[in-house]
Amino acid sequence: MLRCILLSCSFLLMGNLLSAADPLSSWNETETKTKVMQFVGSITEEGGEQYVAPEDRIAVFDNDGTLWCEQPFYNQLAFALYRVHQLAPSHPEWNEKEPFRSVLNGDLKKVFASGEKGILALVAATHSGITETEFKNAVMDWTNHSEHPRFKRSYLECVYQPQLELLAYLRANGFKTYIVSGGGIDFMRPWTEEVYGIPPEQVVGSSSKSSYEVREGVGVIVKQPELNFFDDKDGKPVGIQQHIGKRPILAFGNSDGDFQMLEYTTTGDGPRLGLLVHHDDTEREYAYDRDSHIGQLARGLDEAKARGWVIVSMKNDWNEVFPAE
Amino acid sequence: MLRCILLSCSFLLMGNLLSAADPLSSWNETETKTKVMQFVGSITEEGGEQYVAPEDRIAVFDNDGTLWCEQPFYNQLAFALYRVHQLAPSHPEWNEKEPFRSVLNGDLKKVFASGEKGILALVAATHSGITETEFKNAVMDWTNHSEHPRFKRSYLECVYQPQLELLAYLRANGFKTYIVSGGGIDFMRPWTEEVYGIPPEQVVGSSSKSSYEVREGVGVIVKQPELNFFDDKDGKPVGIQQHIGKRPILAFGNSDGDFQMLEYTTTGDGPRLGLLVHHDDTEREYAYDRDSHIGQLARGLDEAKARGWVIVSMKNDWNEVFPAE
Repeated sequence: MLRCILLSCSFLLMGNLLSAADPLSSWNETETKTKVMQFVGSITEEGGEQYVAPEDRIAVFDNDGTLWCEQPFYNQLAFALYRVHQLAPSHPEWNEKEPFRSVLNGDLKKVFASGEKGILALVAATHSGITETEFKNAVMDWTNHSEHPRFKRSYLECVYQPQLELLAYLRANGFKTYIVSGGGIDFMRPWTEEVYGIPPEQVVGSSSKSSYEVREGVGVIVKQPELNFFDDKDGKPVGIQQHIGKRPILAFGNSDGDFQMLEYTTTGDGPRLGLLVHHDDTEREYAYDRDSHIGQLARGLDEAKARGWVIVSMKNDWNEVFPAE
Repeated sequence: MLRCILLSCSFLLMGNLLSAADPLSSWNETETKTKVMQFVGSITEEGGEQYVAPEDRIAVFDNDGTLWCEQPFYNQLAFALYRVHQLAPSHPEWNEKEPFRSVLNGDLKKVFASGEKGILALVAATHSGITETEFKNAVMDWTNHSEHPRFKRSYLECVYQPQLELLAYLRANGFKTYIVSGGGIDFMRPWTEEVYGIPPEQVVGSSSKSSYEVREGVGVIVKQPELNFFDDKDGKPVGIQQHIGKRPILAFGNSDGDFQMLEYTTTGDGPRLGLLVHHDDTEREYAYDRDSHIGQLARGLDEAKARGWVIVSMKNDWNEVFPAE
């Protein structure tokens, strides 16, 4: 009996050691994983031909669909809908005004039918006129009181476990990890450090204009309804230059909105790695690419091979999708 | 005799040890130095009432007049003038066109008489239409082939020795040091890491619009002539929020263009420190404040005491101004 217990202990211990030894344990032993680890190994090998100095080890990650789930619609829109409900008591006029009325009635079909104009009205009404601190509190209120409609867990738990491991692995190898997302910079910053280990200053995203004001003697930043910067497509390399001022050596995206970011990253001199998550896993997450209304991926699939980009199959390359509860 | 030599050696050694023990050896033993060191001591004392976690130790520094000399005119203008000469062979039309003609004739008075419109034309012609890499090379060409008209040394050696020590001292105490300057972000980034130990991603500044293009198969960022962001006055807190996403706890400036940055920094909760360099040293540098055409400082002087900001006298608080040659 004692021997059995000791043996079990040894196996448990070995299991722990094995998983501790594999920094990417949620990645299957496929060619994809080999390519990632070989790349990191080669650029960190001192004296090696492919060596890259730590200050140039910049890795950029898209967020929606690359680090967390973006279906059935962008999480930031879920936040906007939540916030309409929160703010409704101070806006009786919304009961008569579309698309607010449909949001309050829970009629999402009608909300989406309002098109880009309607969605932008929702975003403007829910994302401006308040200070950065107030907005941050609103975002955290949403993360604490809402859940993903399919996975029935907090949106912050709908992040991809293999990517959490990859981010940590890159940082352990001297990389500075950045988010470069079409999503709102102020929407991501309140939680990216806790969830991804990425501090606010390493988040690049779309932004609204903002102004400086003094309120009751305290200097504050107030969010305005006008768009300042749209961090998508051509905007991604521009945002990278603006915030980081260096060409990354690794870029990870999932849609054609990330095409220019991968192109900018991988057409520089020296060793480079570009990767795209391919959502091909209906069972554990979603399957979509060329014809999707969100995260469309067509040009990336067509050109990946010629450009040496790695297509990461969610179905085949990842043995876990989300973190254990 | 031997004893004398040994004694001299001991004194020399002691001197070295003493200066090694003082991270701010170019700062005189005044109240200013005491305030700075007490602030850093209090916010780094674990378990202390004023303790600030390392991730919140954000220090922001203006550049022109705070980290390097800004007289007799902004160094970035000296760069623009230099570049007009460099580019002139490809622009024969400049021989007939003001203010380019006066630049080429060395008639600075006439250049300045062209006013803001003329200066902006110079900046647009010398700062755009080229890639970030080409611009970086142009900046480094200027730093390598020009010198300050009065101090007869490279502009990069016209930085303030006490501030180099302060930046290093703050970083040794867990601070992340940033530049937040009205100067061009792309003009500073090529040399701030080497000179100040501040990497490109920790430089915030004014910027022109830029676009993403593919040239000969390589993705590049091309600088455009239109202004994107003016990082001065109200713009400084906005730039800080945009790049860093956190309210700093220490801000150091020298002019009323830094007023809002100091206000934003010091009106937050918890321990805060605001400082202003007062240029009062005609002999070793320059003396200017209320009536200066550059780096005007009036409101800052008037309100510093009530706001608890520290006025740093170049004459009395610094025993060295520039690094030894």
